[in-house]
Amino acid sequence: MNNYNQVTDEIIEQIKSSVSGKVYVGDEVSEDFYQDEMPIYGLSEPDVLVDVHTAEDVSAVLKICNENKIPVLARGAGTGLVGSGVAIKHGVMLNMQTMNKILEYDEENMVVRVQPGVLLNDLAQDCLSKGYLYPPDPGEKFATLGGNVSTNAGGMRAVKYGTTRDYVRSMEVVLPNGEITKFGAVISKSSTGYSLKDLMIGSEGTLGVITELTLKIVPNPNATISLIVPFEDLHECISTVPKLLNSNLNPQAIEFMERNIVLASEKYIGKETFPKNIDGVDANAYLLITFDGDDEDSLYEDIEKAAEILTDNGAIDVLVADTPNQIKDAWAARSSFLEAIESQHKLLDECDVVVPITEIADYIEFVNEAAEEYMFDVKSFGHAGDGNLHIYTLSNEEDKIDQFKDEVNEFMYVIYKKAYDLGGKLSGEHGVGSGKINYLRDFEGGVNTGLMRGIKKVFDPNMILNPDKIITAE
Amino acid sequence: MNNYNQVTDEIIEQIKSSVSGKVYVGDEVSEDFYQDEMPIYGLSEPDVLVDVHTAEDVSAVLKICNENKIPVLARGAGTGLVGSGVAIKHGVMLNMQTMNKILEYDEENMVVRVQPGVLLNDLAQDCLSKGYLYPPDPGEKFATLGGNVSTNAGGMRAVKYGTTRDYVRSMEVVLPNGEITKFGAVISKSSTGYSLKDLMIGSEGTLGVITELTLKIVPNPNATISLIVPFEDLHECISTVPKLLNSNLNPQAIEFMERNIVLASEKYIGKETFPKNIDGVDANAYLLITFDGDDEDSLYEDIEKAAEILTDNGAIDVLVADTPNQIKDAWAARSSFLEAIESQHKLLDECDVVVPITEIADYIEFVNEAAEEYMFDVKSFGHAGDGNLHIYTLSNEEDKIDQFKDEVNEFMYVIYKKAYDLGGKLSGEHGVGSGKINYLRDFEGGVNTGLMRGIKKVFDPNMILNPDKIITAE
Repeated sequence: MNNYNQVTDEIIEQIKSSVSGKVYVGDEVSEDFYQDEMPIYGLSEPDVLVDVHTAEDVSAVLKICNENKIPVLARGAGTGLVGSGVAIKHGVMLNMQTMNKILEYDEENMVVRVQPGVLLNDLAQDCLSKGYLYPPDPGEKFATLGGNVSTNAGGMRAVKYGTTRDYVRSMEVVLPNGEITKFGAVISKSSTGYSLKDLMIGSEGTLGVITELTLKIVPNPNATISLIVPFEDLHECISTVPKLLNSNLNPQAIEFMERNIVLASEKYIGKETFPKNIDGVDANAYLLITFDGDDEDSLYEDIEKAAEILTDNGAIDVLVADTPNQIKDAWAARSSFLEAIESQHKLLDECDVVVPITEIADYIEFVNEAAEEYMFDVKSFGHAGDGNLHIYTLSNEEDKIDQFKDEVNEFMYVIYKKAYDLGGKLSGEHGVGSGKINYLRDFEGGVNTGLMRGIKKVFDPNMILNPDKIITAE
Repeated sequence: MNNYNQVTDEIIEQIKSSVSGKVYVGDEVSEDFYQDEMPIYGLSEPDVLVDVHTAEDVSAVLKICNENKIPVLARGAGTGLVGSGVAIKHGVMLNMQTMNKILEYDEENMVVRVQPGVLLNDLAQDCLSKGYLYPPDPGEKFATLGGNVSTNAGGMRAVKYGTTRDYVRSMEVVLPNGEITKFGAVISKSSTGYSLKDLMIGSEGTLGVITELTLKIVPNPNATISLIVPFEDLHECISTVPKLLNSNLNPQAIEFMERNIVLASEKYIGKETFPKNIDGVDANAYLLITFDGDDEDSLYEDIEKAAEILTDNGAIDVLVADTPNQIKDAWAARSSFLEAIESQHKLLDECDVVVPITEIADYIEFVNEAAEEYMFDVKSFGHAGDGNLHIYTLSNEEDKIDQFKDEVNEFMYVIYKKAYDLGGKLSGEHGVGSGKINYLRDFEGGVNTGLMRGIKKVFDPNMILNPDKIITAE
């Protein structure tokens, strides 16, 4: 166990006199800062919350906390799903949302420089207004970009465009000892020593605090078309995906969903878009696919080829959405899955396991069968184009929360084991945080987590940054 | 200074009895293994060379060497340019070329599993025969894939397809203590703790020895077209590149070259393809551009749009190469730059600095002016699409080698400083090795190299792996 010190009045005074932003102490800290989006992993209050405005603010706080061995957590919008944004060791929380400026576009080098507290949605809109696309597109649009980088957020468009990692050119980072440094550069290529930038990406605030990001943007494609593709059979639905990818049609997104989650979501949003029965055949699984490109004619040619592949492989129908409103409607149900699930269940946990795309159908069947012996329901959806699945365990028996937690834990071991057996990983885009920390240790093994712990200690010898997330001290 | 032990007869016997491959001692080691492709950084002989065949071979040797504190260097084809493959501390060399099997294609998941000693050229050909493309395309086709990963090799197609990093899905790694582990997975997305895989990529054999790679492949595009584009003026030539990239035409490669290097290379290969004078106007700089795609018609449409942008921005002509032979000819001169330079000069050093693409023209002018006060000539070419420049310092005054080295060192400080001032980095794809180690320390600074040293010690506490490459012990 690591022993941390208490935040004393003297330390609070030191912090107050060192930073430009507001400092909240004890009850002044809003309860919003006690949790992230997955409260099942617990709530916890920071002793102090600091609105930071500059790298120098962050540096000053870190220096004080490092000298006094006080835990520090840099928090974005609190939309994480694994407990990373919760101050489980209390201490000082840095509110990164107060660093929310889009600083500068460099259109010739196709990058944008931002503060880490800018919301994904704000950058996405701003880019579009200038004719650019910021490709990473996680389901949660109101996360901060710093948070996206810290979890290597993925999202819908990863099939064609990759994940957040692929769009981070450089970052300014404050190390736990207060040193301000820079990893990466505006350039796209580098073989200049170990990639410290890639180590920071996905490190969930445990190695350093990001105070600036330079992100790659691309010209916004002129045309976008989505397809809703119902199948009678889940296996046929999923096994079509590698065929689509092998055909070089380069779809932007391929999502799959089972019937029950579409029903739940459409009920929640009060609008039906997905066909449930086509000429007497029930739709039990769907693909939702998007293509983009600059040339509308060749995009329609791609759609035709795709439709042929889809119907050859068992699709009951192919519905084309090619106006902005149709596309919005097609994605509305998908976009509301999480809220729909949250609104309908009192107890909720989830995992975002990844398996090879060829294994998705078998894996989902395995998961559904494994779930039968537990008290909870399971709803699954996910990114069929990259094998990243969101599996929700759901219950309304609030009085049985301890049983729920125990059973979910047992279930997670079962389904993670299966994922690893198939060549998968335990998280595709949500991260480890505190919620998945034991699974990381057990499934990644002692050698790999030992290396991670060693790296953690190189960056953060006093283990003050977001303690007990990803990796524990021992 | 780190003190290593000598390889004793006893240790040699231990190694011989532990591995499946041949073990060469002292004079039995061919002199080919004393150097890489840049002998200016020095030659050095390994005491022992081991033909390894399995991860277990590698593990056995590493365990013995780690216990006895003996330097170990895993060497691919020896085509590196920064001294990384030279056993400057002697000790044991692992010959990875004996692990050269393409193990298995998984076409549905679009990956191929290979041993690290497979040559890039062999994998590239094999993929094409199956309808796939392995996109990374460094100039040197006879490097091993393990070497490509260890330097994060870039190459011509990085503009569209990215670098080697983007194609490594997973790797089997033997750590210095002999532990065999795995980083990454066949899947494309992961947020499962710190990315140890990304740390290995570009680490030049200093953290672990790669014994297997799972690499992403893509469907081979049906059509490819190259353009040779002469300009009168270097500035106009380079400043056209961001305009091309901003137009969303997505070229596969954009190379630039100055007149003098084209002349030298065409003389070397004995064939002239590039126009030198068009309607009385001298061509002083060229772009060589390749587009690829699946639909030939839309590719020709792209070419038309590109030609318009190019001529609007000062191109004197646009020559289209659209048959395999024409494309081969167009690239022949570019492919022979290094051999042409090597054949014509006795003293040679180089750097592969990266600058933002908007700064290339000014940077090249700065370099050429800075070179004027030194004894050597400078020839430059490079990847205009990503700002990665190859700048060669050349002389035939062999008797003045010490002066050459001193002047080159001084010159490198001048041009690296300028690159960093412009937001660049010291290596885009060749790495650091021993040749650039002081520049890394001085330009990346103590904080970043301190973190790298810490990481090195986590992986390799006895500092046995490829010592004094990238980072020194102190």
